[in-house]
Amino acid sequence: MKFSINRQAFLKNLADVQRAIPSKTTIPILTGIKLVVSQEGITLTGSDSEVSIEIFLPVEHEELQLSIVETGSIVLPARFFGEIVKKLPQNTFTLETNEQLQATITAGSAAFTLNGLSAHDYPQLPEVEKDHVLTLPVPLFRQVILQTSIAVSTAESRPILTGIHMVIANNQLKAVATDSHRLSQRIIPLEMPETSNALTFEITLPGKTLIELSRIIDGLETIDFAITENQVLFQTETLSFYSRLLEGRYPDTDRLINDQFNTAITVVASDLVAAVDRASLMSHTDKNNIATLSINENRILLTGNSPEIGKVEEEITVENYEGASLDVSFNPDYLKDALRLFGSSEATIQFLEANRPFTLTLKDNHSDIPYSFIQLVTPVRTFNG
Amino acid sequence: MKFSINRQAFLKNLADVQRAIPSKTTIPILTGIKLVVSQEGITLTGSDSEVSIEIFLPVEHEELQLSIVETGSIVLPARFFGEIVKKLPQNTFTLETNEQLQATITAGSAAFTLNGLSAHDYPQLPEVEKDHVLTLPVPLFRQVILQTSIAVSTAESRPILTGIHMVIANNQLKAVATDSHRLSQRIIPLEMPETSNALTFEITLPGKTLIELSRIIDGLETIDFAITENQVLFQTETLSFYSRLLEGRYPDTDRLINDQFNTAITVVASDLVAAVDRASLMSHTDKNNIATLSINENRILLTGNSPEIGKVEEEITVENYEGASLDVSFNPDYLKDALRLFGSSEATIQFLEANRPFTLTLKDNHSDIPYSFIQLVTPVRTFNG
Repeated sequence: MKFSINRQAFLKNLADVQRAIPSKTTIPILTGIKLVVSQEGITLTGSDSEVSIEIFLPVEHEELQLSIVETGSIVLPARFFGEIVKKLPQNTFTLETNEQLQATITAGSAAFTLNGLSAHDYPQLPEVEKDHVLTLPVPLFRQVILQTSIAVSTAESRPILTGIHMVIANNQLKAVATDSHRLSQRIIPLEMPETSNALTFEITLPGKTLIELSRIIDGLETIDFAITENQVLFQTETLSFYSRLLEGRYPDTDRLINDQFNTAITVVASDLVAAVDRASLMSHTDKNNIATLSINENRILLTGNSPEIGKVEEEITVENYEGASLDVSFNPDYLKDALRLFGSSEATIQFLEANRPFTLTLKDNHSDIPYSFIQLVTPVRTFNG
Repeated sequence: MKFSINRQAFLKNLADVQRAIPSKTTIPILTGIKLVVSQEGITLTGSDSEVSIEIFLPVEHEELQLSIVETGSIVLPARFFGEIVKKLPQNTFTLETNEQLQATITAGSAAFTLNGLSAHDYPQLPEVEKDHVLTLPVPLFRQVILQTSIAVSTAESRPILTGIHMVIANNQLKAVATDSHRLSQRIIPLEMPETSNALTFEITLPGKTLIELSRIIDGLETIDFAITENQVLFQTETLSFYSRLLEGRYPDTDRLINDQFNTAITVVASDLVAAVDRASLMSHTDKNNIATLSINENRILLTGNSPEIGKVEEEITVENYEGASLDVSFNPDYLKDALRLFGSSEATIQFLEANRPFTLTLKDNHSDIPYSFIQLVTPVRTFNG
């Protein structure tokens, strides 16, 4: 095989495919990137066997400056190949392979020879039947990922909680994540094809995978979403992003969400974020990592305490306060993560009692869907609480 | 004590003093920063007992917005104090201490209480007699530090080599650093006071310390430099920077430097840097980390080789070539570091033979001082070499 291509344009696509490529793996060929050159263009494939990414570079895309001289295929060590292309001189480079599975990459006066492997030894990507294909609006879907991924568990003790749970039914997509200390839920409307109208899909996708996907699809308008029993495929004209589903039963989170409260405050989220950040300066020095919000009709006080270092006290300005007095203690990092998703909007925080999860919702919610964006944070029990 | 001050201006000075403050130490009070408030201003002191930095913030500096309410002193945990000031709301903050050695830091609605220590328990800074004070031009002195510090050793096996050796005599300052694989020397003219005219000072200062100093004095015009037997003091109107000297005999490096060569090339330094960087991509994968330059009258070829991954070959364009053919192998990182100091100027590289150190000098050197900027790199012996 032999082709020449624009270096920067190639690098961008290479970097996207590399998101799937592991640096270490028990299947050595997976540290490589597969290149398949046809008369129509180049297909790049990377995979860690959980996630696979395939990008097609068509000859007709002018910015690629792609010229195919000879078709063929090879697998090249992904990290080195990427570093080489990054450091080449000139705007374009040429890649040519020989029968000893060596690739020679030339640009200007520099010539790299890189030992490759046969593309025939590269694992086949899964077949995903496209019976049920949804079309997702990318900006909204990226928001769903951003808003739920903060509550994804990083502990491997309950693998199912490292995922984002999605329920697709009745022209809605509901996404939920929880690490059992906090929960984030987002529901968006969806246009489902008539054939799938009466169906319900319940899947749990790895949180990390969805974050990678969200980076790759940034800037696109829509993406197709095909679901099978144990795989999903996100697809555009040139991108195919495969992911395995997480196995296991996702906990029923609906029972945690309701409208009851005894105390409620409304705050400008960005103001409270800054205060919670200051409180966490002190709480982080203590292994318990607790901040306390003392709410009563005279004032609302946020405190962080470190017996050794010192303490911080801050009076919180609220837009609105209603209900009973309350002292509630919590991990300030959870509240900070949750509030950040509100930007500089107003958030309403509702409390039932000191030891029950409290909720954060948008004060001005323009969606007709109940609980379309809600977060739960579980307080920490203290001697006061 | 009690004062209020502009937050950003205070932070900048705090950050400079913090450069001397260790995160861990056997003398716990040294993780603190000492504040002494007088009617004239605030003195901030930080020290790891090797390096001490003292900065004075005078009330008359308007940008400080400094208002002294009550004089006094305290030592506060430096890292927390810095993080608190960084995260405070508002443009100014107030700091007040009580008799229990607690400092209350307030800004807007936030109030931090920080446990401190008595300033009387803080170690005294060394007395440096100012018999011999030189005045250094800061931009040139920073260049000396930058150009020599690349060759400072990071190995603790020969502590003296972790320093930059300075010889001050005959209205010149000569700075040399070597890690025994490479060497960098810079000599600058100096105006010495008549009293010290006949004296020679030979000192070795820790390389890391000089790099910190160079960051702090960036933007200044001149700095005073006082030398005693085991200490130096760099001083401006508001800054005092103390450093211990390294003990031991610095190797005689002058005998390594001479004009002899059999082969010489002149290159645009930035072009060769890029090529050496590409060669090192391959050499880094091999534990020997060797690149080879093959010089003959037909062409000059740079190669890097990794038996497993592949190889790189690049023809080097030179501005000038003279002398015998030569194959020389070396650690490409050393050549890269050396060449980078030339920017996009032309560098002349002179070789005696394959196993002898080669030198890099400026092609157009406008200094009258011989060897005012010279670097040596020791080749690696190979089976070819």
